Amino acid sequence: MALPTGKTMFSVLLFAVLTLCALVFDSANGIGFHRSNLYSRTKSILSPGTYRTLYIKTKVDHFSFTNDDTYMMRYLVADQFWDQKGGPIFFYTGNEGDIAWFCNNTGFMWDIAPKFKAMLVFAEHRYYGTSMPYGAESYKDAQHLGYLTSEQALADYAVLINHMKSTIPGAENSPVVAFGGSYGGMLAAWFRMKYPNVVVGALAASAPIWQFPGETPCEVFYQIVSKDYAMSGPGCADTIRTSWKAITNLGQTDAGRKTLSETFHLCKPLKTTADVNAMKAWLSETWGNLAMVDYPYQASFLEPLPAWPIKVVCSHLVNLTKSSDLHLLSGISTAVGVYYNYTGQAKCFNISQQGTADLGDQGWNFQACSEMVMPLCTDGVHDMFEPQPWDFNAFAKDCKKQFGVVPRPQWIKTQYGGKNITSASNIIFSNGRLDPWSGGGVTTSLSDSLIAIIIEEGAHHLDLRGSNPQDPQSVIKARRQEMGIIKKWVQG
Amino acid sequence: MALPTGKTMFSVLLFAVLTLCALVFDSANGIGFHRSNLYSRTKSILSPGTYRTLYIKTKVDHFSFTNDDTYMMRYLVADQFWDQKGGPIFFYTGNEGDIAWFCNNTGFMWDIAPKFKAMLVFAEHRYYGTSMPYGAESYKDAQHLGYLTSEQALADYAVLINHMKSTIPGAENSPVVAFGGSYGGMLAAWFRMKYPNVVVGALAASAPIWQFPGETPCEVFYQIVSKDYAMSGPGCADTIRTSWKAITNLGQTDAGRKTLSETFHLCKPLKTTADVNAMKAWLSETWGNLAMVDYPYQASFLEPLPAWPIKVVCSHLVNLTKSSDLHLLSGISTAVGVYYNYTGQAKCFNISQQGTADLGDQGWNFQACSEMVMPLCTDGVHDMFEPQPWDFNAFAKDCKKQFGVVPRPQWIKTQYGGKNITSASNIIFSNGRLDPWSGGGVTTSLSDSLIAIIIEEGAHHLDLRGSNPQDPQSVIKARRQEMGIIKKWVQG
Repeated sequence: MALPTGKTMFSVLLFAVLTLCALVFDSANGIGFHRSNLYSRTKSILSPGTYRTLYIKTKVDHFSFTNDDTYMMRYLVADQFWDQKGGPIFFYTGNEGDIAWFCNNTGFMWDIAPKFKAMLVFAEHRYYGTSMPYGAESYKDAQHLGYLTSEQALADYAVLINHMKSTIPGAENSPVVAFGGSYGGMLAAWFRMKYPNVVVGALAASAPIWQFPGETPCEVFYQIVSKDYAMSGPGCADTIRTSWKAITNLGQTDAGRKTLSETFHLCKPLKTTADVNAMKAWLSETWGNLAMVDYPYQASFLEPLPAWPIKVVCSHLVNLTKSSDLHLLSGISTAVGVYYNYTGQAKCFNISQQGTADLGDQGWNFQACSEMVMPLCTDGVHDMFEPQPWDFNAFAKDCKKQFGVVPRPQWIKTQYGGKNITSASNIIFSNGRLDPWSGGGVTTSLSDSLIAIIIEEGAHHLDLRGSNPQDPQSVIKARRQEMGIIKKWVQG
Repeated sequence: MALPTGKTMFSVLLFAVLTLCALVFDSANGIGFHRSNLYSRTKSILSPGTYRTLYIKTKVDHFSFTNDDTYMMRYLVADQFWDQKGGPIFFYTGNEGDIAWFCNNTGFMWDIAPKFKAMLVFAEHRYYGTSMPYGAESYKDAQHLGYLTSEQALADYAVLINHMKSTIPGAENSPVVAFGGSYGGMLAAWFRMKYPNVVVGALAASAPIWQFPGETPCEVFYQIVSKDYAMSGPGCADTIRTSWKAITNLGQTDAGRKTLSETFHLCKPLKTTADVNAMKAWLSETWGNLAMVDYPYQASFLEPLPAWPIKVVCSHLVNLTKSSDLHLLSGISTAVGVYYNYTGQAKCFNISQQGTADLGDQGWNFQACSEMVMPLCTDGVHDMFEPQPWDFNAFAKDCKKQFGVVPRPQWIKTQYGGKNITSASNIIFSNGRLDPWSGGGVTTSLSDSLIAIIIEEGAHHLDLRGSNPQDPQSVIKARRQEMGIIKKWVQG
């Protein structure tokens, strides 16, 4: 079975706008997502035996009785720090990927577990990793895949926690705190909202719960991306903005496309204008991904990258706005290599790596096409991209074609309260100022117990990462504040 | 299409224990529920034109994407009192029956609507009344009926309210308050818990949200029933307790069964001991129903009844404990006639009227067999009934046979928080002391905004009925308190 990348919230949400690029440009075959397979890098940073892998049999459909099927959901448990006499349970609400990957990339929980004498539990989201409701058939069609929804996943988690509480001696009265980042952060927040009986609170890191239609202007995401580049080097964003026209110019002729292909070291030469558009989409995605992982130290989350990777990218883009198209694009090519070839191992760049065998991506695409309708767009003025409006109808048409489902753009707002969530309590919404997803996040405290924490130098859920000597003060302070709040929750 | 009675929470919840009587007594064919068809009495007490009947197209399955079917849900709207500039919306969360019947039996909402300048909305619960997801096929099998769950119903209501708010000029900022009684009261409370973004508060009248396994001893319901009889006449409960043995004695022979049949004016003579057990079940149900509708004035909710009907019943059961079996049962027969023949129209009593064509009953039976597993039992010592233990396995077996479903006894607790609901807010739990369902209700305030109101002289949601000159002070006071709290909610 193919294994997911866990990268999907990062790259695949771009799917929405990028697919539309393709649609608008009438290049249905040329959608150029680069989806590198992260699995090769999901090797554990935790020692063997650090956690146990367990399974629970749970319902495929918690909310109806037309289907009594069950499946085995995977979860990871580390109880070596746990105080059986009332120690808390820190519960990671798994998101769109292999849970082992999240377990290995959420160092904050490991860092604080001994201090809290907490048990760690990482629950795998249905339809990802090995938690496949219908085995190899899980992704066959909407009939099998249709149970991939956030509500079903939260119900899985509630059932799992109740199961653990009723079967593990000492766990019954353990307060449970939900942790999650990105889509997992949305789940953590929603888990507390919908199941306050199950979790005493939630740390929702970089959770864009307001990235849904009518809640946040669709432009905001790419505006933040653009700002990250603008502040990371002189003329950096402007250079990227200028590059699209240069690509268009060269992309119009066979000779120009040959030049482009060579300049960008593409594994497969560009043949058509559709291919050129696909390359643009691939570049857009790359710039967006870099904004998400603009971490202050060398890290290997989506790709192996240097510290402050956007600064490194921008260092290759100085004084290029007045250059010739070719000179400018040569700089862009070097810049993009920061993302794809930091290790110097890449022989060529593959813009059409679709990752169709990658269940993680496929799963998130389905979610984006059903419940998780999170519009993104660009205007080319307030951002450094080409203008791309949000076109729901085209998006819905594509979803119908791809998965046989009709998106329900208003549903998440109805289900989880939209902007009207002040009746909830005990949720920390942490956001990094550099993170483009912060635009759809909760960045102002809504009450005494719905607390927003801003990490000025933070990209996508930096706070959930393990501590690092190069951590900026802002994330150190954020983590300290989070620990203080969590302490209050677990003390009741 | 057959129409439901709305009586199901009253009579059919007894199904659990009474079915077991039948199972225990090995009389599968002789389950003697009396389910009079209330439809003949659902004639409107409201003038024609008092409300409008509307429909909304909504999803059959809100929580998965395997089924994109929609259906037409009925709702009733009365906006003649409504202040379009910010007047609240009072929203009845329809329960297991025809919504017109609830609309006609919830006088409290009509009484207070003009004072609050409120719009009234009565939403019909899916699979009841005319809100059939699959038309005449809705009850065909678990494949069609399986979407009959509380979660789906609440989602229907949330979708409806959002629809109204986005389409009715002036409604967008109207605070919405949920109202409901019995199962509808449970839905009102759960609606506020799960969708606090949609409703600012809920009046949950006689809502036994804690009548689930492990939350309330299964004996409590019939203990309260018995207490109602014990306090309504000297020796009343004792006489009924004695009567079972008398029925058993006579029921052993053909001649005895003939005598029983004649004494009780049965339409169909008792032929077997199974029939005799069915008669006992019918009597038990009758005593239970009377406890629910022991209202202080003549009313016609389940059946046309005199004021304080249990007192009238007990007036026929004085000094009978030492009597002959026949004399005692003659008194019981007269007493039971208070329930079935107050109008003097009944020619005979039909203990086997199963109402299989009555979708309301069938629907609740399904709900009781799936999510709404609410154990009831008797011990014969602390109550006036024959001992009947709660036997989940037998119950589950019967459910499987009848509907092809496996009950999920723990699910409601997981989903709605069980006894751990203090994170919720703005719910009034009102309970009548006489109401046997009060045993599974919230009868002590849990916080400043989870408020329990006890109506000492109240039976099943007396407070939701329209005001009456014979209302006891306790219900007048309760309604006043409820109005005060609701006023605070809608003023924000």
